Amino acid sequence: MSKIPVAILGATGTVGQKFIVLLQNHPHFEIRELVASPRSAGKPYAEAASWKQDIPVPEDIAGKIVKSLDETLESTILFSGLDSSVAGEAETRFAEAGHFVISNSKNHRMDKDVPLVIPEINPDHFEIIRKQPYKGAIITNSNCSTMFIAMALAPLHKAFGVEAVQATTMQAISGAGYPGVPSIDILGNVVPFIGGEEDKVETEPQKILGTLAGDHIDHAPFPVSAQCTRVPVFDGHTETLSIKLGKKASVDEVKEVLRNFRGMPQEKKLHSAPEFPILVTEQEDRPQPARDIWLQGGMSTVVGRVRECPVLDIKMTILGHNTVRGAAGAAILNAEAMVALGYIS
Amino acid sequence: MSKIPVAILGATGTVGQKFIVLLQNHPHFEIRELVASPRSAGKPYAEAASWKQDIPVPEDIAGKIVKSLDETLESTILFSGLDSSVAGEAETRFAEAGHFVISNSKNHRMDKDVPLVIPEINPDHFEIIRKQPYKGAIITNSNCSTMFIAMALAPLHKAFGVEAVQATTMQAISGAGYPGVPSIDILGNVVPFIGGEEDKVETEPQKILGTLAGDHIDHAPFPVSAQCTRVPVFDGHTETLSIKLGKKASVDEVKEVLRNFRGMPQEKKLHSAPEFPILVTEQEDRPQPARDIWLQGGMSTVVGRVRECPVLDIKMTILGHNTVRGAAGAAILNAEAMVALGYIS
Amino acid sequence: MSKIPVAILGATGTVGQKFIVLLQNHPHFEIRELVASPRSAGKPYAEAASWKQDIPVPEDIAGKIVKSLDETLESTILFSGLDSSVAGEAETRFAEAGHFVISNSKNHRMDKDVPLVIPEINPDHFEIIRKQPYKGAIITNSNCSTMFIAMALAPLHKAFGVEAVQATTMQAISGAGYPGVPSIDILGNVVPFIGGEEDKVETEPQKILGTLAGDHIDHAPFPVSAQCTRVPVFDGHTETLSIKLGKKASVDEVKEVLRNFRGMPQEKKLHSAPEFPILVTEQEDRPQPARDIWLQGGMSTVVGRVRECPVLDIKMTILGHNTVRGAAGAAILNAEAMVALGYIS
Amino acid sequence: MSKIPVAILGATGTVGQKFIVLLQNHPHFEIRELVASPRSAGKPYAEAASWKQDIPVPEDIAGKIVKSLDETLESTILFSGLDSSVAGEAETRFAEAGHFVISNSKNHRMDKDVPLVIPEINPDHFEIIRKQPYKGAIITNSNCSTMFIAMALAPLHKAFGVEAVQATTMQAISGAGYPGVPSIDILGNVVPFIGGEEDKVETEPQKILGTLAGDHIDHAPFPVSAQCTRVPVFDGHTETLSIKLGKKASVDEVKEVLRNFRGMPQEKKLHSAPEFPILVTEQEDRPQPARDIWLQGGMSTVVGRVRECPVLDIKMTILGHNTVRGAAGAAILNAEAMVALGYIS
Repeated sequence: MSKIPVAILGATGTVGQKFIVLLQNHPHFEIRELVASPRSAGKPYAEAASWKQDIPVPEDIAGKIVKSLDETLESTILFSGLDSSVAGEAETRFAEAGHFVISNSKNHRMDKDVPLVIPEINPDHFEIIRKQPYKGAIITNSNCSTMFIAMALAPLHKAFGVEAVQATTMQAISGAGYPGVPSIDILGNVVPFIGGEEDKVETEPQKILGTLAGDHIDHAPFPVSAQCTRVPVFDGHTETLSIKLGKKASVDEVKEVLRNFRGMPQEKKLHSAPEFPILVTEQEDRPQPARDIWLQGGMSTVVGRVRECPVLDIKMTILGHNTVRGAAGAAILNAEAMVALGYIS
Repeated sequence: MSKIPVAILGATGTVGQKFIVLLQNHPHFEIRELVASPRSAGKPYAEAASWKQDIPVPEDIAGKIVKSLDETLESTILFSGLDSSVAGEAETRFAEAGHFVISNSKNHRMDKDVPLVIPEINPDHFEIIRKQPYKGAIITNSNCSTMFIAMALAPLHKAFGVEAVQATTMQAISGAGYPGVPSIDILGNVVPFIGGEEDKVETEPQKILGTLAGDHIDHAPFPVSAQCTRVPVFDGHTETLSIKLGKKASVDEVKEVLRNFRGMPQEKKLHSAPEFPILVTEQEDRPQPARDIWLQGGMSTVVGRVRECPVLDIKMTILGHNTVRGAAGAAILNAEAMVALGYIS
Repeated sequence: MSKIPVAILGATGTVGQKFIVLLQNHPHFEIRELVASPRSAGKPYAEAASWKQDIPVPEDIAGKIVKSLDETLESTILFSGLDSSVAGEAETRFAEAGHFVISNSKNHRMDKDVPLVIPEINPDHFEIIRKQPYKGAIITNSNCSTMFIAMALAPLHKAFGVEAVQATTMQAISGAGYPGVPSIDILGNVVPFIGGEEDKVETEPQKILGTLAGDHIDHAPFPVSAQCTRVPVFDGHTETLSIKLGKKASVDEVKEVLRNFRGMPQEKKLHSAPEFPILVTEQEDRPQPARDIWLQGGMSTVVGRVRECPVLDIKMTILGHNTVRGAAGAAILNAEAMVALGYIS
Repeated sequence: MSKIPVAILGATGTVGQKFIVLLQNHPHFEIRELVASPRSAGKPYAEAASWKQDIPVPEDIAGKIVKSLDETLESTILFSGLDSSVAGEAETRFAEAGHFVISNSKNHRMDKDVPLVIPEINPDHFEIIRKQPYKGAIITNSNCSTMFIAMALAPLHKAFGVEAVQATTMQAISGAGYPGVPSIDILGNVVPFIGGEEDKVETEPQKILGTLAGDHIDHAPFPVSAQCTRVPVFDGHTETLSIKLGKKASVDEVKEVLRNFRGMPQEKKLHSAPEFPILVTEQEDRPQPARDIWLQGGMSTVVGRVRECPVLDIKMTILGHNTVRGAAGAAILNAEAMVALGYIS
């Protein structure tokens, strides 16, 4: 089988760079086009990008000439790490032109006919793209902080019902892109505010855990309360959760349900799927971003300190790699799932 | 009036050092004795202590010979920053010998006849020392993380009633003493566990906000759920709170009540009292430990981001200086309050 | 004596903010005008500036309306923290208009008729302003990294002669202004390059230690080799030095000469002058930026680890507060010296 | 060929852990025994070690029972990461018992009959083990800071002669082991002192670049002056160098010589050998520890900013992974070289 040609929109940015790293040696996708703003267009990629990854720019990428967002593209799949200031309009245009736009940007996530998918949880939501008016389609993944919350909630919601969620996030600087957070603001500091973040965390999980109902998704009805902070950590979002369940469950039952969680990426052994979507640790001082984000290639959600909550029912600490499972890796897994399910060929 | 002689127990430790810094030029107290473990005893202080403060060792302190914990002391007040491994027994012994032991250690905090006091909140609890079997007395202040939570809750409890509290703390490394947290464990990392801390945060506020009932304190009945983490911040504990109130209140009413909070330290203008025990900021990205811990000499609790909580009622971010208001400064204010109220002369 | 009215050029920037902090309650100077780019002009200062100091914006400053660089100013002294992209032209224009421009910017430092002064070292160089074609004058202080090197070299050059200098700097992020260094570039990292910095460190000390020769300065002839790096430190530049001396000197002689160094700011007891321009520490692991930058109000150069160098003659570690003694404080001390010497009245 | 059984001495420490990580799937060596202090002996490894690596403890290692240093061992090669307080005596004892002790500890490095080898530079020095009185032998690698200096000097010494070296190091915290540097001492700080380090950097390069002369090594005669500092970086030592050459060379000639450097590990394609022992970067702000330490598996020395030095001849910034090429990886490469050269079979 020949590889499917893909383009990366926003290729010079932080998420774009991670797409490039994660797509190296991918068995099904081949980076055909790199697309960025007019400022970068026309330059070789290595010159246009301020590369911040811990491997060098791959050789076959370094010399590739960056295309401009307003050019016509030839790739089947467009992975979008576009800035939200331009993503909305551009992604629509490319979907109209017949591309599958697999987007990490927030703009279309809450559109009624756009699926917001984590393939372990709601791959049936892909089906809603048939309601889109485009020749192609737009598919989105969640915000990086939402990702790990949705992963932890999904099996609990199915087993016990989730009735309310309290979350405090301690988010890594890489989530803010480049140049992103000035060092003067974060070195030895905590910033208790990230613009727009709490709103996403408070609304996206309900769509992901919602039910496909013909031409729309019925959102799950539980409230989420989020307090989002930035901490001086390079990669990895750490989050504390307290959860009210519909049906009482012991700590051991909760851990059992989390540990046994599997989805279609595991069943179909998708290339980027972690063997275990959720890892439950018994070490009392884990998970930690500096130690645990690369478990299973950065694609797993690590859960620790599961215990009773005196106010709601269960509390825990969760962690995930914000630019892998929480961004570029999530989009790639969506694309793999769509190929496996026959939406893309 | 001549100054009251005071001793510092655990004088070489992190809290002991902060006692020394804060008692410089104190109008009522004079450091007479420095007390530490046998390993330090007999040495000049400057040699015995691994000094980590940002002013040099005060000249009159540097040459003072450190006494051993088992020596007889002559000071009226003993400020204790002793390690909990020795504080329990030593503090009891000194109280029996007639000293007022004003302790920052956890050992006696939950003793039935020992007051756990924040003088803005419960100065009437000092009265319970009359039930103690000692010639002197033991008085305690709260854990550093509890302090700012209790401060924020006190006016709300009085005005609206507090029915439940969810707290996540992001605590500074200075709270762990010296050598404390190894740099390998915390640089660019979050550690989601601090031994014993959550239990303190979940039980101390109820005693502080409790009611004196003859020979004991009736603890306030609301549950607190705490998730305590360590972050790479030097000084200053940042905490997210969600609070369920007994009576509905708007965000503006909550801010008004917090802003208007005053107690006996403000009325009596105690030397170490902040003019405003609680500062409410309207800046959306504050409070921040690197910017706000020194407001009012490190003695205030800074509250920001007061907003509605979709799960409980009100949420906010709070901050305070953990080794000043959260430790040594709290004990000194307790001593000042006891002098002003006539317990010590 | 009524206070001399002063303006701050570049008032919203990092150095401008430090000028405001350091001029609070100054006995001779009074901030009359705040001047910034057209983008800030017309706004109250508190709104125009992204304030990053650890005290709040002073009340009398917060509401002051920011003036534009192209307005006519009324202050006698203009402290300039202007960005180098605009400082050159603007400072010249203000000097022509009759103001004393005391500048921290690099643009005019190496001009033949502009003094580059550290008043402990070369206050006689002020005299060269009489050769300037302006109604007013331009006076500069050194680059922040140069400052501490020049301070350490000055007494050694006088006592023994300096023949060569090797320097490696480890510079704080505050030196890069705001937003300055992205956190992604410096958290847990060292950046071995700071644009333009090495050139300044390699040429400014020779002018400062040079000799006034009529209408110009004869630069001191020794070579300096600099390697400048950025480290994740908030404030305080740490620098390693190796020095070749003209006349052999023992470690003790070198320390003695450093300790005894005094200049006209000390003799005339200028308001911002440190009692000891150089502090020599005997602690083997000092100086350290997190511990020692605030000695003497941030105005001293701290020298430690003075020892023999197997390649040149003497090596040592030096430290200073880069935005106080290395920038705003240096300019203020220059202004105080010029008032004391009768240049400004 | 069956694999050679190896033991790790000091297996629970930081260097010991890195040995375990680097020996996973090694083609020639197989970890047979894990050896540590009596406190750890008798326990399964996973329980005895405070594991700090970014992969989990390998499964075949986790359950292995740790042996005590005073037990008889059966492995042919003993990789030693022992603390210097015990390494001296223990390594001698094991060499007497017939083992090849490949040590990263400092104790025997300067012994007359012990080779201090970097196989790219002086593999002929292995020969001196024939002068050792042991049934087995002791072989050492350099200090972690020395490693990268010696690598950069070796080709220059051969091509042009090295006459003097000035070095300032900015060393990572991982070099201090665990618990190592307290976070209170290094967060946002620089510590300009590392006990014993400067002496090693000033004496080891001359032995490595020395000449085998029958029963001893004639040390190279140039002086090295070192200033060693600790910075808040996790892994990777950054070092500035200034070098005086015997014969003038242009910057381009120096870069050419560095780039072309190869040794016997490259010729014999040893398993752990980097393809290029030295990488020369032309990016003006590189090398950086957070970006470049993993080039070539952490086994290369990265050189940047090669330029003329106004005091000596050439200056540059160098970088390497201190616990890989600078410690465990160096010892493993030494063992591979000895196998390839027939010393061990």
